[in-house]
Amino acid sequence: MSDLRIDLPRLLARIAALAEVGAIDGGGCSRLALTDDDGEGRKRVVGWMRDLGLTVSVDAIGNVVGVRAGREDGPPVMTGSHIDTVRTGGRYDGNLGVLAGLEVIAALNDAGIVTRRPLAVGFFTNEEGARFSPDMMGSLVYVGGMPLDDALGTVGIDGTTVSENLTRIGFAGQRSVGKPDVHAFVELHVEQGPVLEHEGITIGAVTGVQGIHWTEFTVEGVSNHAGTTPMRMRHDAGYAASTIASFAREVARALGGAQLATVGHVSVSPNLINVIPNRAVFTVDLRNTDAEVLAEAVRRVFAKADAVAEAEGVRITHRSLADFAPVQFDERIVARVESLARARGHSVRRMPSGAGHDAQMLARVCPAGMIFVPSVKGLSHNVAEFTHDADIDAGANLLLAIMTELAA
Amino acid sequence: MSDLRIDLPRLLARIAALAEVGAIDGGGCSRLALTDDDGEGRKRVVGWMRDLGLTVSVDAIGNVVGVRAGREDGPPVMTGSHIDTVRTGGRYDGNLGVLAGLEVIAALNDAGIVTRRPLAVGFFTNEEGARFSPDMMGSLVYVGGMPLDDALGTVGIDGTTVSENLTRIGFAGQRSVGKPDVHAFVELHVEQGPVLEHEGITIGAVTGVQGIHWTEFTVEGVSNHAGTTPMRMRHDAGYAASTIASFAREVARALGGAQLATVGHVSVSPNLINVIPNRAVFTVDLRNTDAEVLAEAVRRVFAKADAVAEAEGVRITHRSLADFAPVQFDERIVARVESLARARGHSVRRMPSGAGHDAQMLARVCPAGMIFVPSVKGLSHNVAEFTHDADIDAGANLLLAIMTELAA
Repeated sequence: MSDLRIDLPRLLARIAALAEVGAIDGGGCSRLALTDDDGEGRKRVVGWMRDLGLTVSVDAIGNVVGVRAGREDGPPVMTGSHIDTVRTGGRYDGNLGVLAGLEVIAALNDAGIVTRRPLAVGFFTNEEGARFSPDMMGSLVYVGGMPLDDALGTVGIDGTTVSENLTRIGFAGQRSVGKPDVHAFVELHVEQGPVLEHEGITIGAVTGVQGIHWTEFTVEGVSNHAGTTPMRMRHDAGYAASTIASFAREVARALGGAQLATVGHVSVSPNLINVIPNRAVFTVDLRNTDAEVLAEAVRRVFAKADAVAEAEGVRITHRSLADFAPVQFDERIVARVESLARARGHSVRRMPSGAGHDAQMLARVCPAGMIFVPSVKGLSHNVAEFTHDADIDAGANLLLAIMTELAA
Repeated sequence: MSDLRIDLPRLLARIAALAEVGAIDGGGCSRLALTDDDGEGRKRVVGWMRDLGLTVSVDAIGNVVGVRAGREDGPPVMTGSHIDTVRTGGRYDGNLGVLAGLEVIAALNDAGIVTRRPLAVGFFTNEEGARFSPDMMGSLVYVGGMPLDDALGTVGIDGTTVSENLTRIGFAGQRSVGKPDVHAFVELHVEQGPVLEHEGITIGAVTGVQGIHWTEFTVEGVSNHAGTTPMRMRHDAGYAASTIASFAREVARALGGAQLATVGHVSVSPNLINVIPNRAVFTVDLRNTDAEVLAEAVRRVFAKADAVAEAEGVRITHRSLADFAPVQFDERIVARVESLARARGHSVRRMPSGAGHDAQMLARVCPAGMIFVPSVKGLSHNVAEFTHDADIDAGANLLLAIMTELAA
């Protein structure tokens, strides 16, 4: 079976064909979840699934799964990802995992091979979360992590619900959700970060998905004249914000390892050169693969906020925007990704995923893992997102190898 | 002469009448320099000058000076300020100094007193700088600190010049500028800061105007995914900005004394919670009454910016938005403000001015000083700006006392 290979031009042709739907300048895609363009993309992929002989079903949250029968019945070895994009997204994020899954099926079809276990390729609804919160909604509902009715009733950025959009685009399916029977799940995805390219490595054996803790802080101080207010009489919301923001980096440095800290959003009011800010809003994005260290990072940032509020005489409130625990992928799958990649002559490294993925939801119900391939310059959620053809070839062939092994 | 007093109701009535022109909600005024509303306010004040028997002249930059003859000829003892406001200003800033000057004249008229030296009351064009840069333009041109043609050609925020606006509102005068002959200048002004109210003091004997150094920093880094970019590979423009902004406070703390440091403006791009900022723009406002210490503060902030740029791998550029050296008022005038205030039973303290004032320009050509009265809550450039009637009374009577003394 080691001679079995995917057809790279065919895979690239499908990536290009799907990228035509919702195409935007610069080579990217704009297919927000459950828009008409998403519906058009879905129909195109469903058509390919049918062409490949898969039995297609759509569930109540719009997840689509195509199944290829095995020599035996039973839970399938599954792959997949998503085909929705952010508003100005690339053509690889999500799409690569779905279309490489179809290419695995196509390669097996060409070779006339029937695996022992069934195989399945799926795409999950609203992974990006750019139109409806939360992200990874479809796979979360799929594994029973969110009540179906809550998901269907979710109102998006344009004021319409998931339910009405599913109906409009014709993907309000009948299949029930919440208790999928899956033997194993492996997802191929672009890294969306710079590590693989930077280190000259072809394959990432993804060990898990880091936990994410997002907080929005609001500082309320007192606005005053910058020239006439003595330093000791200030309650400077901007100073408090910049001090806590800068401290977040210190926390990441002190905790080391995989701890990440980012302050991406800052706004101050009235935002004039000679007026002490009376209000500042900023976000702190903390991530770690280790739940305990992540909790310690959160604790330190909050303690700093309390100390700054006390010292500066400002009021600091906060609200949680996201709080996901780290996910560990199945060690056997991680090890097989690693060894199969090595056996094929690829450089490989174990690494956590910095972003969330559908595979982390599947990890709740079956052994799961992921394969990463390099993103040029680490660009993601960007029309300039790019992965070299050779890396796509390596990743898709590795997916083929591990799926056939898991299904044997 | 110690029984001579101003007529507080009459002064308050003029303040209220002038505040009717360009009145805005909340009790404030919007009379940007050389707008039609400013022109209307000017005509109202000129009318009062004429009613009081002053000889009114308008110079080439639109400054208006009303002179009351003394028993002898020679340079006048002058007071005055400005009547232009910021877009949402108060009714006291500037106006109080001009109208208290008129009230000094009125009180002397009522008492039938003619001083030895002439007295003059002026209002200077575009003190606020909210429509045309620089601020204090009229008094700067008055003392020869800026060429007339440069000032006349200045283009404002609406694309029109000082010259055409002066002509339109009828205040392009004939009197020459640049070499005024003034015996002494004393300006009454609201503090625009919280110090006097906070300390329960009625009169500020202003020792000078602090130097101002404004810099806009632009940080250029690299935008990337907050979840997938290792800390060691970041070039975070937002982190650099917040670290330098927070450090500015440390500089003020370390240098102590009158050193002020404010970061009032911050903007980051793309300003999204999960994206490392690739660009940040922020301002640093440094002020001190001591030129050497101010220069040291500037040096420390710039050195920190260089160090952060180097460490984070970002590019930091800067441009100067203002750079004014500190001004010292005449010690004899400061001492007389102090002792005359004490003699009248007022609490008094010496203090620098945090904001710029016309008196600092007059200090280039004659002994000059200022009297401050408390601003409630330190509010300034705000429709809610307020000074209690009793403090206006104290300040205006002190102005009367020192002007009559200087003119004796």
